[in-house]
Amino acid sequence: MATINDIAAKLGISKSTVSKGLNNAKDVSEEMRKRILETAVELGYANKRLQKERKALCILVENMDFQTPNQFGHDIILGFRQMAEPEGWTVDIIPIDMEFQRLTPYGVFMIEHGYQASFILGLTLLDPWMHEFRTSKIPAVLYDNYIKENPYIASVGCDSQEGFELAVKYLTSLGHKKIGLLSGPLESYILKARYNAYLSAMEKYGLEINENYIGLGYYVNDSTRKYIPKLMDQGVTAILFSHDVRAISAITECEDREIRIPQDVSIIGFDDLPMTAHMQPSLTTIRQDRLALGKCGFYALSSLLNHVPIGSILLRASLIVRDSTGPAPEHAWIDTHPQALNLPKNTTAPILS
Amino acid sequence: MATINDIAAKLGISKSTVSKGLNNAKDVSEEMRKRILETAVELGYANKRLQKERKALCILVENMDFQTPNQFGHDIILGFRQMAEPEGWTVDIIPIDMEFQRLTPYGVFMIEHGYQASFILGLTLLDPWMHEFRTSKIPAVLYDNYIKENPYIASVGCDSQEGFELAVKYLTSLGHKKIGLLSGPLESYILKARYNAYLSAMEKYGLEINENYIGLGYYVNDSTRKYIPKLMDQGVTAILFSHDVRAISAITECEDREIRIPQDVSIIGFDDLPMTAHMQPSLTTIRQDRLALGKCGFYALSSLLNHVPIGSILLRASLIVRDSTGPAPEHAWIDTHPQALNLPKNTTAPILS
Repeated sequence: MATINDIAAKLGISKSTVSKGLNNAKDVSEEMRKRILETAVELGYANKRLQKERKALCILVENMDFQTPNQFGHDIILGFRQMAEPEGWTVDIIPIDMEFQRLTPYGVFMIEHGYQASFILGLTLLDPWMHEFRTSKIPAVLYDNYIKENPYIASVGCDSQEGFELAVKYLTSLGHKKIGLLSGPLESYILKARYNAYLSAMEKYGLEINENYIGLGYYVNDSTRKYIPKLMDQGVTAILFSHDVRAISAITECEDREIRIPQDVSIIGFDDLPMTAHMQPSLTTIRQDRLALGKCGFYALSSLLNHVPIGSILLRASLIVRDSTGPAPEHAWIDTHPQALNLPKNTTAPILS
Repeated sequence: MATINDIAAKLGISKSTVSKGLNNAKDVSEEMRKRILETAVELGYANKRLQKERKALCILVENMDFQTPNQFGHDIILGFRQMAEPEGWTVDIIPIDMEFQRLTPYGVFMIEHGYQASFILGLTLLDPWMHEFRTSKIPAVLYDNYIKENPYIASVGCDSQEGFELAVKYLTSLGHKKIGLLSGPLESYILKARYNAYLSAMEKYGLEINENYIGLGYYVNDSTRKYIPKLMDQGVTAILFSHDVRAISAITECEDREIRIPQDVSIIGFDDLPMTAHMQPSLTTIRQDRLALGKCGFYALSSLLNHVPIGSILLRASLIVRDSTGPAPEHAWIDTHPQALNLPKNTTAPILS
């Protein structure tokens, strides 16, 4: 671990200037302070004094609501705090956005605030800090994201493969054979993982993998509108979704088209958002236990702080069976509604997704 | 969690008889004691009194040497104890074998000794207790093994995929294109994982996957003797091994055949056994940090004991580059030694593997 001496030597300045820069003293220019902090990050310096005073972790949150118990991030954060705070850690919750990341490098942010480590929720591959994580030496745990070859960064998430295997096994037991997937685009780590999990579950149960059973699109409602008819046209009798929000969108779409759930098509979401139990029909879904995910996040951080280079922790998935799944229909919906798909297609707005 | 009452009700006997049975009192028949213990296991009873007195965990070891620092299991056990004992746990190390497992069901063994949870090293899919783990409700962590759909059992291991990706990336940078794999048979969980990791790494780096580059065999030396000539005959210039012991066997085999390592063929092991640094040539290998693996084992057990249903923890792999790897030869060995493979084949014992 680098010391103040190392930073001073590298920049050719005195130890006291480095110390002033790190501690935000007024008689160091803003430019010098920036150079000192960036060198500190580069060399892997940790501000022991601040850390000793504070024993502090932060949870950095982007693209995820967490303020109320109904929101996705709430229980993840609660679970983390339930593990961390009894061990004497202060946990700060800090919403971040792209702009914030562009203004301050991650390492500088962490050193300035004396955070020993971070738990990071909701970042995508497009976020500026993701690049920095490849080489950062500050322990961090990413939810549903994975950084290769950096032993300071671990990943936690729910086991997508186990989740989709449970779902396909269950659907198979109900007689379904043509099972589709509707997902967001594969640019995100977790969507790619779920896509692969779908393929592997289909293969495992000896079911046909057919690209016409799969729809990928960025905008939720637009891609639902585009792909539900396409999949029904192929004779698909059950659809898996990469996230509950897409499955919920499909409930509306099917209602509009008078496709009955589950009589004509069974649908299964992923996440078990609190609202899914109250949909009409209530949604069968793969549960991510968010409280447990938060706790896993803390286990992973503890291990990194103890120099145990965990790469990933996967939490068990479970299938919550509700009303949106049922036995496969005797005849595919398209065979009994041969004209059905022509009508709405012509009356809807152009497809964007 | 079941109580003594539940056991008594299920067996139609008094609470005091149950209590005597659980505590090994003399005035309960051996047969009754057995029925009580088995019912206790079935109902998920935990002996709170014994557990309160003892706060005890066990490490169950089969097929793995661990007594001296040079042996594979030594540091795994040490790492586990380094985490567990400061938290007040007693850790017993218990070698087990097939016979032992057949005599006493796992659940009965755990309850009788008041162990809250176990860390399990070296079991294969053939071990009798593996079947019981599918439904056991006693927290257990398995090294290099995975039990589906049971939230009481977690898995820890080193990330085979990361390991083989590092190896193939490195070999590619040295100009190798035809890269082979020698492994044990795919009946074990971890060997299957490594086999898949090999395929996925080859695919990732755009290299040809060819079944003639792959050799699987149970007996180490026999399968080395069989497959080294086969792979060399195919023009393979580098070979990955599922375990160091196989790579070490290949060093001898190549020496016998005057195949030079690394000039004619580069070889990479997996495990970083202490002896690999002292081989001639010293072995390039993928390191499993065994101390960290033991610590991971305790993190996983802690999380299960806290009702956080972790499925698996994967530790980072790292590539340790030594002398058994070098630049790909300009001409494959077989092209410059066209007669070489006929001789030893006729002089060796029949191939058994």
